Amino acid sequence: MALPQALVFDVFGTLVDWYTPIRRLAEQVGAELGRDIDGGRLATSWRRRYWPAMDTVVAGDRPWCNFDELHRGTLADTLAELGAGLPDLAEPERERLVAEWHRLPPWADTVAGLAELRTSFITATLSNGHVRMLVDLARHGDMRFDAILSAELAGTYKPDPEAYLTAARLLDLPPGQIMLVACHEWDLNGAAGAGLRTAYVARPAEWGPDSPPAAAPAADVAATDLVDLARQLTR
Amino acid sequence: MALPQALVFDVFGTLVDWYTPIRRLAEQVGAELGRDIDGGRLATSWRRRYWPAMDTVVAGDRPWCNFDELHRGTLADTLAELGAGLPDLAEPERERLVAEWHRLPPWADTVAGLAELRTSFITATLSNGHVRMLVDLARHGDMRFDAILSAELAGTYKPDPEAYLTAARLLDLPPGQIMLVACHEWDLNGAAGAGLRTAYVARPAEWGPDSPPAAAPAADVAATDLVDLARQLTR
Repeated sequence: MALPQALVFDVFGTLVDWYTPIRRLAEQVGAELGRDIDGGRLATSWRRRYWPAMDTVVAGDRPWCNFDELHRGTLADTLAELGAGLPDLAEPERERLVAEWHRLPPWADTVAGLAELRTSFITATLSNGHVRMLVDLARHGDMRFDAILSAELAGTYKPDPEAYLTAARLLDLPPGQIMLVACHEWDLNGAAGAGLRTAYVARPAEWGPDSPPAAAPAADVAATDLVDLARQLTR
Repeated sequence: MALPQALVFDVFGTLVDWYTPIRRLAEQVGAELGRDIDGGRLATSWRRRYWPAMDTVVAGDRPWCNFDELHRGTLADTLAELGAGLPDLAEPERERLVAEWHRLPPWADTVAGLAELRTSFITATLSNGHVRMLVDLARHGDMRFDAILSAELAGTYKPDPEAYLTAARLLDLPPGQIMLVACHEWDLNGAAGAGLRTAYVARPAEWGPDSPPAAAPAADVAATDLVDLARQLTR
């Protein structure tokens, strides 16, 4: 396979673990308030509300908004769903939960894999998270990229083709010289549809201990983690 | 002085030396072709044509174009000015000169100063060079930033206020929480006009051995180099 010049990385799930810290913080908030919060359920329910919320933007029914704004709205719905007095959770606790998405830890292989891949390829994020959120995550996790690219720069979200094509335009490369690295089928399909190449990285624990089993989706390369991907692309 | 949360850096002149490599490559091209090229004059004449070319874009007389496109046009004018058969310099040599702007070396203090400043501040480029050019320069010079921001993301050039305000919007900060670090008065004035804070860094050799003397312009901080700036901002 002819190699691309640049790799762009999905972030939530692919590079960082959102489930563990959101579950833990929710449980901590519950303990502080003397309320019974199922942290795992809050984390997965909150995350699931991300796609329908974005879809309303991609469909043009709602103007672009960043992930903090998105998370405030979907957290309110999540708390209402979870019940047990949670809908009246106070503003400061809600903001702690929203802010936690800026401080998620990289998976164990992420930093080393990114460093190895950066020796051979231009590397950039390509996330639906906004630029500032990605800056915070990169600083928090000591993840080094050559550029922070975000769907924010296109004013829409992946899998809208414009999100991928804006990244290609900013990297001054044809889409076929860029490979999206992601653990989600919908994202890989969106990238392929826009003419990018694709690398699937398995993240079997993304949804916590009860993660649903996932079959490997179609992609140009499939890897068990980023170190494995670096081995495959740089040998 | 209350400190800002982010520092954004001008690049050409402030972080990297454009004069020395452009002069050297021009002289090397001349030697290869058996032509007499005054490399220093080519470098300074070419650079001087950058402002009027950008002005036509900021004034709206010409659509946004990236620095490679800009440099192709201003190089043609420069070669015509220099005369001595240079206007017919062939395409491959011109492209070598245009590409050289992606491979300029950092000043001796740049990498250490950036690293020190990054421990206390979010750091990003904010250059009129396009994103890909800045990615190439950062990789070439091993300069680490938290984000690559460019006037390209605003579709205009500094000192248009929109270039600075777009950076503030992407960093999700009020302009007053951002400090522009630059060696050029026009850039510092533009940033101050948009509400940013300013740090002047002296680069007395920017224009080569015959650099004109420059008085320190008005700025919130003045430093002799980036290591000095880090000392002043992080003590």
